Amino acid sequence: MTRTLRVGMIGYAFMGALHSQAWRTLYHVYDLGADVEMRAICGRNEEAVSAAAKKLGWASYETDWRRLIARDDIDIVDICTPGSSHEEIAVAALAAGKHVLCEKPLANTVAEAERMAAAAAAAPGTSMVGFSYRTVPAITYARDLVAQGRLGRIFHVRAVYLQDWIVDPEFPLVWRLRREEAGSGALGDIGAHIIDATQFITGSSITGVSGLTETFIADRPLVGEVHGLSATASSERGAVTVDDAALFHARFDNGSIGSFEATRFANGRRNGIEIEINGSLGSLRFDFQSMNELFVYDHTVDAKDAGWTRISVTQPDHPYMSAWWPPGHIIGYEHTFTHEFRDFVDAIVSGTPARPSFADGLQVQRVLDAVERSAASESRWTIVPE
Amino acid sequence: MTRTLRVGMIGYAFMGALHSQAWRTLYHVYDLGADVEMRAICGRNEEAVSAAAKKLGWASYETDWRRLIARDDIDIVDICTPGSSHEEIAVAALAAGKHVLCEKPLANTVAEAERMAAAAAAAPGTSMVGFSYRTVPAITYARDLVAQGRLGRIFHVRAVYLQDWIVDPEFPLVWRLRREEAGSGALGDIGAHIIDATQFITGSSITGVSGLTETFIADRPLVGEVHGLSATASSERGAVTVDDAALFHARFDNGSIGSFEATRFANGRRNGIEIEINGSLGSLRFDFQSMNELFVYDHTVDAKDAGWTRISVTQPDHPYMSAWWPPGHIIGYEHTFTHEFRDFVDAIVSGTPARPSFADGLQVQRVLDAVERSAASESRWTIVPE
Amino acid sequence: MTRTLRVGMIGYAFMGALHSQAWRTLYHVYDLGADVEMRAICGRNEEAVSAAAKKLGWASYETDWRRLIARDDIDIVDICTPGSSHEEIAVAALAAGKHVLCEKPLANTVAEAERMAAAAAAAPGTSMVGFSYRTVPAITYARDLVAQGRLGRIFHVRAVYLQDWIVDPEFPLVWRLRREEAGSGALGDIGAHIIDATQFITGSSITGVSGLTETFIADRPLVGEVHGLSATASSERGAVTVDDAALFHARFDNGSIGSFEATRFANGRRNGIEIEINGSLGSLRFDFQSMNELFVYDHTVDAKDAGWTRISVTQPDHPYMSAWWPPGHIIGYEHTFTHEFRDFVDAIVSGTPARPSFADGLQVQRVLDAVERSAASESRWTIVPE
Amino acid sequence: MTRTLRVGMIGYAFMGALHSQAWRTLYHVYDLGADVEMRAICGRNEEAVSAAAKKLGWASYETDWRRLIARDDIDIVDICTPGSSHEEIAVAALAAGKHVLCEKPLANTVAEAERMAAAAAAAPGTSMVGFSYRTVPAITYARDLVAQGRLGRIFHVRAVYLQDWIVDPEFPLVWRLRREEAGSGALGDIGAHIIDATQFITGSSITGVSGLTETFIADRPLVGEVHGLSATASSERGAVTVDDAALFHARFDNGSIGSFEATRFANGRRNGIEIEINGSLGSLRFDFQSMNELFVYDHTVDAKDAGWTRISVTQPDHPYMSAWWPPGHIIGYEHTFTHEFRDFVDAIVSGTPARPSFADGLQVQRVLDAVERSAASESRWTIVPE
Repeated sequence: MTRTLRVGMIGYAFMGALHSQAWRTLYHVYDLGADVEMRAICGRNEEAVSAAAKKLGWASYETDWRRLIARDDIDIVDICTPGSSHEEIAVAALAAGKHVLCEKPLANTVAEAERMAAAAAAAPGTSMVGFSYRTVPAITYARDLVAQGRLGRIFHVRAVYLQDWIVDPEFPLVWRLRREEAGSGALGDIGAHIIDATQFITGSSITGVSGLTETFIADRPLVGEVHGLSATASSERGAVTVDDAALFHARFDNGSIGSFEATRFANGRRNGIEIEINGSLGSLRFDFQSMNELFVYDHTVDAKDAGWTRISVTQPDHPYMSAWWPPGHIIGYEHTFTHEFRDFVDAIVSGTPARPSFADGLQVQRVLDAVERSAASESRWTIVPE
Repeated sequence: MTRTLRVGMIGYAFMGALHSQAWRTLYHVYDLGADVEMRAICGRNEEAVSAAAKKLGWASYETDWRRLIARDDIDIVDICTPGSSHEEIAVAALAAGKHVLCEKPLANTVAEAERMAAAAAAAPGTSMVGFSYRTVPAITYARDLVAQGRLGRIFHVRAVYLQDWIVDPEFPLVWRLRREEAGSGALGDIGAHIIDATQFITGSSITGVSGLTETFIADRPLVGEVHGLSATASSERGAVTVDDAALFHARFDNGSIGSFEATRFANGRRNGIEIEINGSLGSLRFDFQSMNELFVYDHTVDAKDAGWTRISVTQPDHPYMSAWWPPGHIIGYEHTFTHEFRDFVDAIVSGTPARPSFADGLQVQRVLDAVERSAASESRWTIVPE
Repeated sequence: MTRTLRVGMIGYAFMGALHSQAWRTLYHVYDLGADVEMRAICGRNEEAVSAAAKKLGWASYETDWRRLIARDDIDIVDICTPGSSHEEIAVAALAAGKHVLCEKPLANTVAEAERMAAAAAAAPGTSMVGFSYRTVPAITYARDLVAQGRLGRIFHVRAVYLQDWIVDPEFPLVWRLRREEAGSGALGDIGAHIIDATQFITGSSITGVSGLTETFIADRPLVGEVHGLSATASSERGAVTVDDAALFHARFDNGSIGSFEATRFANGRRNGIEIEINGSLGSLRFDFQSMNELFVYDHTVDAKDAGWTRISVTQPDHPYMSAWWPPGHIIGYEHTFTHEFRDFVDAIVSGTPARPSFADGLQVQRVLDAVERSAASESRWTIVPE
Repeated sequence: MTRTLRVGMIGYAFMGALHSQAWRTLYHVYDLGADVEMRAICGRNEEAVSAAAKKLGWASYETDWRRLIARDDIDIVDICTPGSSHEEIAVAALAAGKHVLCEKPLANTVAEAERMAAAAAAAPGTSMVGFSYRTVPAITYARDLVAQGRLGRIFHVRAVYLQDWIVDPEFPLVWRLRREEAGSGALGDIGAHIIDATQFITGSSITGVSGLTETFIADRPLVGEVHGLSATASSERGAVTVDDAALFHARFDNGSIGSFEATRFANGRRNGIEIEINGSLGSLRFDFQSMNELFVYDHTVDAKDAGWTRISVTQPDHPYMSAWWPPGHIIGYEHTFTHEFRDFVDAIVSGTPARPSFADGLQVQRVLDAVERSAASESRWTIVPE
């Protein structure tokens, strides 16, 4: 008899809608070793969460995450809340014997992340942190190419994550711009993604960093009313307490050096992730704007015929792509979550550890922390603790 | 009380899986004036169709399309079968008072299409033909720009639909390569899409054509066994009875001239749709490989600053995009079907005619027929009947 | 002792300035078997031609081309005048024993071109027609790849030459828009280039065509005053007597089919030459906007790793590139003329026939003529005489 | 009467050939207020330099640069030798009353550069350092856009200069890899260019830096025989004493932050200069691979229509482009030297200071020095002296 995994999700804003679409789709496109049921959604406002349950396809709802965790009919807890609440929820859910999927960043501080990783190691359930860019097929395929040795010795990692949504100085002081809720600014929100993605692709860890952070706009209007993802500005102002932009250099344990930049002030870059890796035998490049493509340079080809090859990562034998459409028909952003959830369910069903693990999330947190410490001490080189 | 529209879908191969994903998603991402239920799926093989029902999310199944049409609990009939069966099913479904959504091409011949258009005009139900590229947001936005006069007088239309899946001469003689089932080859299968798309974007109709068709590989191995979308070759061979490639020139009723090419022999082009429109005030370009982008050239800008602007058609106020993710996060091929179905449901709910209509499908069929007649008479100019 | 080839050039407008730059450079960058001297330039206006001689680097000048041809100290006659004068000058120069380089198109009519080809065949001198795009290194390298069989059997040729300099209906009626001087419009001026280039790359000849031509703007202001390359409009108007745009389909003697378009009404396309060739083993693409690059698709690579490779045709072992800068440093438009002149001088020095020959120019003229005849008879298929 | 400027050039390797081509062309394409004569070339090997004089178009030669400087018939001294000799030659030439054009980097050390800048300030002649990328028309046009305020307040500068010519560990230890001759490695050779170019574009100076340098290959075969630009490897090895790659962060005096990378180990990047500038009103991007193009993003356009516009910087009113061909016809690498020489001659003729001046070259040298000092002290933030 097929096992059924029953999901309870906490949070129903942008990330909740996205996760719902992925959970709805998962069962229909992959052959999993289990049925997946969307059992309950959880939020504090009963009217809103009940409407969300109907609209997003969840069978029931809760208004207190503790009650959700206490339910016997929930196997998986999917945490889509801001980072400041991750530790409390995740640790409780793990203690309750649940499988836990936690959105990134794992936590707002290293200390929180350490406790979460310890809880995950001690708990029987499967746990995973949601670095969803790993499951972009082109990123996974890049990882495969490096693992196969196709790039040889790695010399350079170059990664930027560029956004432009707060260039306007009158854009209000939303929670992502306040340290107490968000932990950090561009660094933790988007810088975390390129740290994880490049370590994943290269199979290597960052050992030390030198950082520089900057807040271009010191204060902003307080938030007036919130409407879905947007918000109006009030007439009062408050201080921006996170970084607008973060730059850092890194050394990896494979001997390569890396350049990283995360910013919300790059006009013209809506969600511009670009990664380039240069090795002794070849190089690769990824641009999220064309997320179904991977550019590969093969140095073993005669220079006369060598060049960057634009691979459409839409063949059925590319990672995760067996589920989708014929070659040349692209997938979108949301599909990476379906892929991520497949990996998570696969790990539960097979009883093997899921990756990226809470330990992986902790390690990224340590890199972020080292960048902040370096930035606070004149960019001095700072070792990332193991 | 909210109305419920109950869908029955006929066919469950590639197109059926794609339609199922779009039907599953539709309700959750748009505010429709109706609930949508996936009531029944229909196919001839009971074992296969019952498995498909479960996997794809349909509540029940039928093995005879006539029984599906006869059911009282079906409001919408979604036809995903090959073109040779479209007329019979669609006419019967319309006569039974159903709303009918029919995959493209509307039919294999002009005569069939004429009878279908007549049936649609006489029936109470809403009908629509599935030219899904219209609902690529960048294509709809291109249509908007032309309608707003941003391109001025149109001079040139240039469109290609390039594929490469039968370059290998040992690829077997699947049904799409046989006239009795497919009607025509590249011309009707993919040429139909760029005819519809360019007429849609320009708001103009093709009045005459000159065509050339070619079959590069005269005979191929017969199909051995079929496995999903792929098939093995047997040791016997049969004649290819459709075109491998079709080229044609056209004149539009807005005074512009067009160049069209449809082929399955363009190595390196998995699903390469490219459209360019040149007008007196500007130009636009679309490439399906980057289907979330539209390139626009504005001739009213000083030449020193003018150039092709690459627009990421992912803003919430771009067509259909309010349903999806933040700017810069792309959607995929399947979403165009969700968009198409939204238009269809909107038309049913509002009681207005749906577009593209069966009459639109008939007009495309007449263009295809004129191309074939021209190709058969030394490319001589051939008028498209109104 | 090194032989010296002494050049006399007729015409000093845009093409004359361009040729002068190429002649000035030729000797310094290639090891030729001869010295090259810029001995005389010829134009009708003495004041202007004497100034041009000084500015462009010619040792002397003439005001009558007959006198130039009569000079003993001229070995090479370089004809940069409009097409209507080519026959008379070239035939006389060949009769005088000169080597003759004639700008394209070879002539304005087939009859003229036939007489020129006959004269060239009978004369002792070397003759060549200036299809300068052949000597774009990426185009020559494309030819090499096809010749090596890297593309296999050729199925498709797709070529456009798009310009936008007369979109404005008040642009004046310059000589290029009048049949008596220009022979034809976009067809002969720029269509000739893509006919030659695609035949050159594929090593194959066009055997038949179907054409469509269009003049979008029927009449224009007469030319007022001419200032260099630009001209003012007078208040009187005259009829445009050439095509603004020409579309044609072709069959090649290698079994492939081709689609061609030449227009001066493609807004946003300053000088947009794009060529794509699809074969059974691979494909290639060229875009003049990035003239130092060639895109190649290799079908023999596994689909998972296959894609279009962007080759920077700037390696020293790429055609003609030994003369220039290190890999990755591009050359410009003018260099193709230096390359062309090197080929011409090489042919003279080695005593071998130069290509493209006057016979090649005649064959292109026959294709152009067949397109015009087809366009005049309802696009009917028209054989190109051998 | 028109003044004549007589040029003497020291050095005739790659840079000498390039300069010769630019000097040969200069007079013919621009209206200068002076005639320019290529009077003498200087090199130590008489046989080689006499051949070079003939081939490259110089009227005479010298084998000792002191004799060249002593000649009365030389007005301009063009220094194309390695950096270690710049100070001695330039100071002597300035003392002799010559106008001096010195290739970049101005010197190998700050101390040398300071003495050169002082000599230039004291001398009557015009002096200039050869940062040739300033005169890429797209770069100059980028500078114009920033100066006009089109980008608003500048937030980010992002620049890389990526090459791949020494990825092979057996590539020999040429002079560019030895500190005593080259001063530094990738940092000074190519990093200097992007420092100068970004300061030029933004009209702003770097005030502090944090750097990291790396030498991936510690030792290499000694050079055996040199053949033009290439060299063979001997069986002995020596230590690489310069950086293979350099990364640094910077702060500019306009409040922006910058990320820089220079490397010779980026496989697939022959000469990959990429620059991006993000401001409050817009952004711009440049890629040397397409050096005739500039990408501009205009934030003042509604987001629905905003995007990166690809400008072909080939209009006659773009910087320096009046000399060349019609719009859409590109120029190449060498033309930037013709532009640079025009600026130099213009400054001499008009008696105004030339830019980039020796003082500009000194300032770049100070930035390079600060990067090296920071890299030597754990990346600690290092102020660039004014």
